[in-house]
Amino acid sequence: MSKAIYWLGVDLGGTKMLAALFTDKFKLVAERKEKTGGQDGAKAVVGRLKELIGDTLADAGVPVKKLGGLGLGVPGPVNVQTGTVISAPNLGWRQLPLQKILERFCHRPTRVFNDVDAGTYGEYRFGAGEQARCVVGLFPGTGIGGGCVYEGEIFSGSEHSCFEVGHMQAVPEGRLCGCGRHGCLEAHASRLAISADVAAAAYRGQAPALLELAGTDLRDVKSRTLAKSIAAGDSAVEDIVRRAARQLGVAAAGVVNLIAPDIIILGGGLVEALEKLYLAEVREAVANHAMPLLADRVKVRAAQLGDRATVLGAAALVAAERGRK
Amino acid sequence: MSKAIYWLGVDLGGTKMLAALFTDKFKLVAERKEKTGGQDGAKAVVGRLKELIGDTLADAGVPVKKLGGLGLGVPGPVNVQTGTVISAPNLGWRQLPLQKILERFCHRPTRVFNDVDAGTYGEYRFGAGEQARCVVGLFPGTGIGGGCVYEGEIFSGSEHSCFEVGHMQAVPEGRLCGCGRHGCLEAHASRLAISADVAAAAYRGQAPALLELAGTDLRDVKSRTLAKSIAAGDSAVEDIVRRAARQLGVAAAGVVNLIAPDIIILGGGLVEALEKLYLAEVREAVANHAMPLLADRVKVRAAQLGDRATVLGAAALVAAERGRK
Repeated sequence: MSKAIYWLGVDLGGTKMLAALFTDKFKLVAERKEKTGGQDGAKAVVGRLKELIGDTLADAGVPVKKLGGLGLGVPGPVNVQTGTVISAPNLGWRQLPLQKILERFCHRPTRVFNDVDAGTYGEYRFGAGEQARCVVGLFPGTGIGGGCVYEGEIFSGSEHSCFEVGHMQAVPEGRLCGCGRHGCLEAHASRLAISADVAAAAYRGQAPALLELAGTDLRDVKSRTLAKSIAAGDSAVEDIVRRAARQLGVAAAGVVNLIAPDIIILGGGLVEALEKLYLAEVREAVANHAMPLLADRVKVRAAQLGDRATVLGAAALVAAERGRK
Repeated sequence: MSKAIYWLGVDLGGTKMLAALFTDKFKLVAERKEKTGGQDGAKAVVGRLKELIGDTLADAGVPVKKLGGLGLGVPGPVNVQTGTVISAPNLGWRQLPLQKILERFCHRPTRVFNDVDAGTYGEYRFGAGEQARCVVGLFPGTGIGGGCVYEGEIFSGSEHSCFEVGHMQAVPEGRLCGCGRHGCLEAHASRLAISADVAAAAYRGQAPALLELAGTDLRDVKSRTLAKSIAAGDSAVEDIVRRAARQLGVAAAGVVNLIAPDIIILGGGLVEALEKLYLAEVREAVANHAMPLLADRVKVRAAQLGDRATVLGAAALVAAERGRK
């Protein structure tokens, strides 16, 4: 019998879940995607998750006992000691002991991470992070996620995942955030905040291309639609997105002043659709708002792994932890 | 001959320098203070520093060969690999290889740290930090310094000291900072910023007690004078100091959102003079502006070691480093 072992990574998102099986060298062996269906409740989602894990192993013909471990990224804060999901607003979860549940299911070492932490670790190991000493990931999207890998490990609190860049104050007494406070970066610079602003511009007649591309329902404008409307000449849309990118950049400058990362990686849908704009604005904001000494040193880059960052990172994290034991 | 070894810590400030000799258990053996006289140039200051070190050892009758090592805290960013002082505005220094200079002088292991980093480490080891996993020090004074001890070591960039809390953005497009940018926390909440605001209040006739205490020269109001004027009923002064403390608290909340420290230690002259006010405002701002999950966990405390924090921390840091080798 072969001694090969495998590592499974899962990215559990608000709308879809992705599972990927890797060899010990992190070569992809099998991959599956499924709708999350969060509205059906935690029990149904966990059921689908178990099925997804089983099916992915079956696709590759790998028995569960050959699994070195299982790593998951979830969209919310996590208790890093127990792997309990503290809250996942997109899934309606609160205090779900996911790590324990899945460990009972597959009887293999299981670890639950915040999805952005796992994604940043994925980029750190296999993507734009080059295994540098301090790598920060910033992922503007529906919300704004952040993660940090410091000396090879995810930067976490003693009990909880952290690096909540989206809830740093961008504007004193600014817009109301989903978290209940005012002026958070997320309330000003996420895709949803941008959507609200471009919708207003469109209703004022300042975004003709956007109206043509998206119709009149502008509650949730996709990143690609924003990119197309800018390319078609909607300068009001460009101004709005640049302003949001600049605010992200000022937050990035704050991160640079505090922890002096070697590399900042920008990822997520907005950056994928508007990479040039985002890199330029964030670089300029870091140059203008961080201490020159620290700003000069940090590299600002686009993510390289796209949707694979979190599954790769979660699988590699559980493998790294097992390796240390 | 006794095998006892000793550790020397130096706090090199803009106006005075303090040297302290400790046993291997960090019991104080001798202590000396001297004026820095930065206006005389780097060569003169280094000369006085050497003399101070020699005199402190002589006071205790300890020969230099019994020195395990020498740690210094300096008021500016430091190259953590070489111990070169990158800049120290209060001393007029730029790129001074202090570590090398002193190593040549005393032929003992020498390390140069940022003074706030060393002070935070001092509190971490011997004061309010309780050797917790992640301890942050915030020191509002003439400027606003920050430091972080993470898993027993100073949090630094790969090349430079960091944790420049004073240059995080507090107010978008706000006041001009000494660093040349606008809206830095230091430009709004340092003692010099408070001085400017209370002077304006005094000239408007809103700070009668302050005018009586400080006379009409209000360019650089001392922390104790602020405390006395508040105690005497100058409510405008109290409002100004509370606003500054709250802005420090919002920055502290940002730090909590990012790195989820276990303990935040507030120190420096303003906090010593107005401890109750500062603790209350910072605690409230953290509760209002950090994620509840992370805000609930962090302890906000006053520093315990006063002027001894940096000498103790610098001495203990060099000892810890030697211990690891």
